[in-house]
Amino acid sequence: MTQSERFTGVLVPASTPFTPDLQADGARFNAFCRWLLDEGADGLAIFGTTSEANSVGLQDRMRLTEGVVEAGVPAAKLLPGTGTCALSDTVMLTRHAVELGCGGVLVLPPFYYKNPSDDGLFASFAEVIERVGDARLQLYLYHFPQMAGVGIPLSVIERLVKAYPDQVAGLKDSSGDWSNTEAVIRNFPSLHTFPSSEARAVDALKIGGAGCISASANINVRAIRALIDVWDKPEMEERNKAVSAVRKVMEGYPIIAAVKAVLAHYSGDDAWETLAPPLTKLSAGQKAALIGGLTESGFALTMPGASKAA
Amino acid sequence: MTQSERFTGVLVPASTPFTPDLQADGARFNAFCRWLLDEGADGLAIFGTTSEANSVGLQDRMRLTEGVVEAGVPAAKLLPGTGTCALSDTVMLTRHAVELGCGGVLVLPPFYYKNPSDDGLFASFAEVIERVGDARLQLYLYHFPQMAGVGIPLSVIERLVKAYPDQVAGLKDSSGDWSNTEAVIRNFPSLHTFPSSEARAVDALKIGGAGCISASANINVRAIRALIDVWDKPEMEERNKAVSAVRKVMEGYPIIAAVKAVLAHYSGDDAWETLAPPLTKLSAGQKAALIGGLTESGFALTMPGASKAA
Repeated sequence: MTQSERFTGVLVPASTPFTPDLQADGARFNAFCRWLLDEGADGLAIFGTTSEANSVGLQDRMRLTEGVVEAGVPAAKLLPGTGTCALSDTVMLTRHAVELGCGGVLVLPPFYYKNPSDDGLFASFAEVIERVGDARLQLYLYHFPQMAGVGIPLSVIERLVKAYPDQVAGLKDSSGDWSNTEAVIRNFPSLHTFPSSEARAVDALKIGGAGCISASANINVRAIRALIDVWDKPEMEERNKAVSAVRKVMEGYPIIAAVKAVLAHYSGDDAWETLAPPLTKLSAGQKAALIGGLTESGFALTMPGASKAA
Repeated sequence: MTQSERFTGVLVPASTPFTPDLQADGARFNAFCRWLLDEGADGLAIFGTTSEANSVGLQDRMRLTEGVVEAGVPAAKLLPGTGTCALSDTVMLTRHAVELGCGGVLVLPPFYYKNPSDDGLFASFAEVIERVGDARLQLYLYHFPQMAGVGIPLSVIERLVKAYPDQVAGLKDSSGDWSNTEAVIRNFPSLHTFPSSEARAVDALKIGGAGCISASANINVRAIRALIDVWDKPEMEERNKAVSAVRKVMEGYPIIAAVKAVLAHYSGDDAWETLAPPLTKLSAGQKAALIGGLTESGFALTMPGASKAA
């Protein structure tokens, strides 16, 4: 993979379906991933935060990644999350993704020990790159300090880009701090940088950002893709309004559970409502209010039904 | 294991040695664990925070636990940390520990997703207990909100103790919040509750606590054990003073790196100075100041040297 092939556009942190006994459900996952690409996703950031990745065991993550490739999803479209707390586990997942031909990996810093030094954080990523030792590796840094408890400061990004210009390919900024996103885009033009919401996709594209990787793309990827396709044209304004209306409804609920409630409703497949602990599904009242709010905003979705997904 | 056999006294969150290429070093680990028991440790809380457990891969954790048992450490003396972010990984590690005959497991809540609901947190532990499904399981809850980013509130402890009185065996409170430790000890007398510092060991024992699980026990377990042995006798005061002097020196440094620096110095085995990323070792200046401070406090330590440990 060359730099020109790095990800751009809208990537979906695809939700992970679970069976009633909390196993990651490969069959539903494959169908969902194929559907997201049919809907216009430029790539699938499987095993992100929205995907409940950190609630999915390491073996299950590898099994699902293999499965989705076997099911016909081009590996080059996949950007699996492979960052764990332990170097050897992160290396194992990263190597596995690279060997499958994934277009990249999205890597959290080790997130148990808080306030790491710049040296320690640099070493955490550098050791992964060195140990995987594969020219095909395209590593996207995953900055989400509020959730992970550990972020990736500009000083560390700078060292990594200098040391590994061919491997450090991009960054997802889930901080919601636009000044940080802007600083990453402006300071590191070689990186493909994605804000975590379509709310900032156009702003990012205007200054050289790559698009967005957004939770709500799970349910609205067609409209987000349509927005990004015209980011520098007058039609942008109207499309942005429609996308914003949907996002604003979603923002009133715990986002991971809300995405699954919407998928369950529009697919008619209640299995989507299962979340892995410690997360819990929306109450019936919350779900009804969410669907009501979405309908009112003009949102509509046609999804393959339960019979197709199963 | 019955309730009367639950852990008491001083347990050591044993440091994990690494080889120069950052592999968890089983040979050194075995020798160190045997030495800690010889020194008077009542148990070994291997793979705790001080052990850099979350920087050790899942397979390595199981390999090291098996190795230390094969090396002659009684499994009943082991309280491995088995809590990860993902249910299936936590179940795997917990089942492995139970099947080896470990005296218990110390379990963090899933710690990636922040602010879980009580229902979600209860389910996280309940699902582990149900899935392991083994009457031998003795589960100690690990409360360390500052590091994990997720704590275990009294309301959840209450539900777990009621639902699983035979399995939920104890709690380690690393919050440093004595009012919380006191509330756990007073409200849940069936639990064997350990503060995370010998500074509170006597206070805890006075109201029914079980002892302590303390980072500095890695280097000072003999004195801490001697203190706990006389917790209700007049000699306690003097022994507490000596132990406190050592702890106060240690508290001036990043504790995990400080423990390893002390082990390296007194064993003459520099291999102990390696930490896994994102943690970094003390600078030479810090190490010298630390050893100087300890010597001044009256601290002395005789350890097996590099040749024995390797």
